[in-house]
Amino acid sequence: MNRCKRMRITDISEHAVKLEGNVANALVNFSDHTISVVIVHTDVVRAGKPVAGIAFNSIGRYAQSGILKDRMIPRLMNAEAHELLNDQGDRFDPARVLACAMKNEKPGGHGDRAAAASALELAIWDLNAKLADEPAYVTIARHYGRTAASTRVPVYAAGGYYYPDGGISRLKDEMLSYRDMGFNAFKMKIGGDSLKEDLARIDAVLTIAGEGSKLAVDANDRFDREVARTYAEAMHPYRLRWYEEVGDPLDFDLNCELTGLYEGAVATGENLFSVQDLRNLLRYGGMRRGLDVFQMDAGLSYGITEYARMVDELEAHGFKREFAFPHGGHLINLHIVVGLGLGGCEAYPGVFQPFGGYYLNQVAA
Amino acid sequence: MNRCKRMRITDISEHAVKLEGNVANALVNFSDHTISVVIVHTDVVRAGKPVAGIAFNSIGRYAQSGILKDRMIPRLMNAEAHELLNDQGDRFDPARVLACAMKNEKPGGHGDRAAAASALELAIWDLNAKLADEPAYVTIARHYGRTAASTRVPVYAAGGYYYPDGGISRLKDEMLSYRDMGFNAFKMKIGGDSLKEDLARIDAVLTIAGEGSKLAVDANDRFDREVARTYAEAMHPYRLRWYEEVGDPLDFDLNCELTGLYEGAVATGENLFSVQDLRNLLRYGGMRRGLDVFQMDAGLSYGITEYARMVDELEAHGFKREFAFPHGGHLINLHIVVGLGLGGCEAYPGVFQPFGGYYLNQVAA
Repeated sequence: MNRCKRMRITDISEHAVKLEGNVANALVNFSDHTISVVIVHTDVVRAGKPVAGIAFNSIGRYAQSGILKDRMIPRLMNAEAHELLNDQGDRFDPARVLACAMKNEKPGGHGDRAAAASALELAIWDLNAKLADEPAYVTIARHYGRTAASTRVPVYAAGGYYYPDGGISRLKDEMLSYRDMGFNAFKMKIGGDSLKEDLARIDAVLTIAGEGSKLAVDANDRFDREVARTYAEAMHPYRLRWYEEVGDPLDFDLNCELTGLYEGAVATGENLFSVQDLRNLLRYGGMRRGLDVFQMDAGLSYGITEYARMVDELEAHGFKREFAFPHGGHLINLHIVVGLGLGGCEAYPGVFQPFGGYYLNQVAA
Repeated sequence: MNRCKRMRITDISEHAVKLEGNVANALVNFSDHTISVVIVHTDVVRAGKPVAGIAFNSIGRYAQSGILKDRMIPRLMNAEAHELLNDQGDRFDPARVLACAMKNEKPGGHGDRAAAASALELAIWDLNAKLADEPAYVTIARHYGRTAASTRVPVYAAGGYYYPDGGISRLKDEMLSYRDMGFNAFKMKIGGDSLKEDLARIDAVLTIAGEGSKLAVDANDRFDREVARTYAEAMHPYRLRWYEEVGDPLDFDLNCELTGLYEGAVATGENLFSVQDLRNLLRYGGMRRGLDVFQMDAGLSYGITEYARMVDELEAHGFKREFAFPHGGHLINLHIVVGLGLGGCEAYPGVFQPFGGYYLNQVAA
């Protein structure tokens, strides 16, 4: 074990990378969005090369170069080995790494900081998987005392944005391209146009999706109570798969009202970045067991350490982990879904490259 | 008005500055803490020099160089004049500046971003005050249709940290120095030691404060339910001014339990950085009208634009603005208290220099 105890991080680099794509949802244009790629270099040599862990924070919350370079990376580089390694000294301990990255940070205020920490923490999981010479989902499952029962993951193709040009015809082409790749479940944006136009868009996509249960819609937090209700009533006959991010993600009363009046599933959680924020959704949001969907994303919420605590919190409140469908469509979430036995995963086959996509051959591999 | 319409921002610079002091509360050591100083330069010339607005984000959440330089400052520098100025074109419009700084940012996740935006937004208020050649509190009061009834602000000396050495004797010396400056109300930290030791510290400080109503205590979010209750029972006989930041700042259930069992005032809000987070405290936290205290801080929560909305939200829920005592002890909060007619203000006469302090001669000036 002495050999292993000497294992150490030699350098951590961060690179802000622009997302590909000029798309918009109901609130946000993604053309200037970036993410942070983090590389954790070690002095462990395999096949003549030092082993490094690589990860990135999830889409939607920008690169976090400042928080990483000014605060978190120096904390890790200044840490003693026992602050970062497990007791055996043969792997990095993600929870310890996270605690070290968060040293002297005050409670609450779970925003950009959570995305910065997640890039670091996820790189540690990639590193551990490489040290064990195994896929990350195996590392994740073992760490949490689970067995990856199946590596087949239900995915759906997310997209259906508002493009600067092309309208409904371009939207149909986009969805058709996903169907041609083999996807049989889809998600599209609503709320960026009038209700009438949005219903026309839903009608158009349903000609490709086939039926409502194969199509989810995402309002990206745009709606107030009245609009949320109007859309709920208008969409009711479609029997859609779910109605996502309807109002402000922290307006738990609005979510509670919505789940009280909309018979179909409601989905939320992608903008909750801590266990405590999720706990408030569970306490006050009226989420319905066996129906509503949770979309927290380890890549935005301090990494797998905090995400796994969120899954525990779901179960402590009587919800099943099969109703967790992580946001973001990046590869590590596919491993997390397998490793933790979750319900399924978002995929972005068409946008947010090079980070948003895995293609169906990866999914099925 | 044509002359005014040409007014524009020529440059925005940001400088991360270290806080002075090596002090700790129950959770955080501040020795590595920084803040962002933001300077908004304009092409308006007064007395031969260009007018610039200067501000900084509040203490406790670090400098926000990355978010400012990578996201917010470029958005402002790329904006058209009408996106930043008021309709008359003679002042900058803080709400428009904030909206511009937040362009393409997703809802929720109110953390570091809120502190970054606040430094920018507060610099705009300083700029407008300089353009009008008046104190900021006059600018603030007029903007919100108020008259600054009095410029005398109740303040209290916050401190009473856990120092690396010196113990209770150093704590008494610290409080004595505040009393010698003329302060007659004080706040000290608890939760960084055993209950027994903390009660001894409170006893010691009370020999200087004189009576419980002159002393507040701050647990800095450290306590779980059981410890919160144990301290509440033990401190009850002291009749302290308030019991602050008891548990996780987003654990509204815990706050509600606490206000149900502790007869004295509870204070919280410094870690709530948006109207929606405050709304959740008001909905679920059991805060008591006419007793409990709100400590939201414009310097951490998107600036005065959002802070004023928070004050509106307090009043919409039947709370009085006189129970708002902003966190942080920096000079702009003194102006905000006067301009918005709030209850009073924290002061840090001994720590967090050069940003934490105004001295009593400033307060009384």
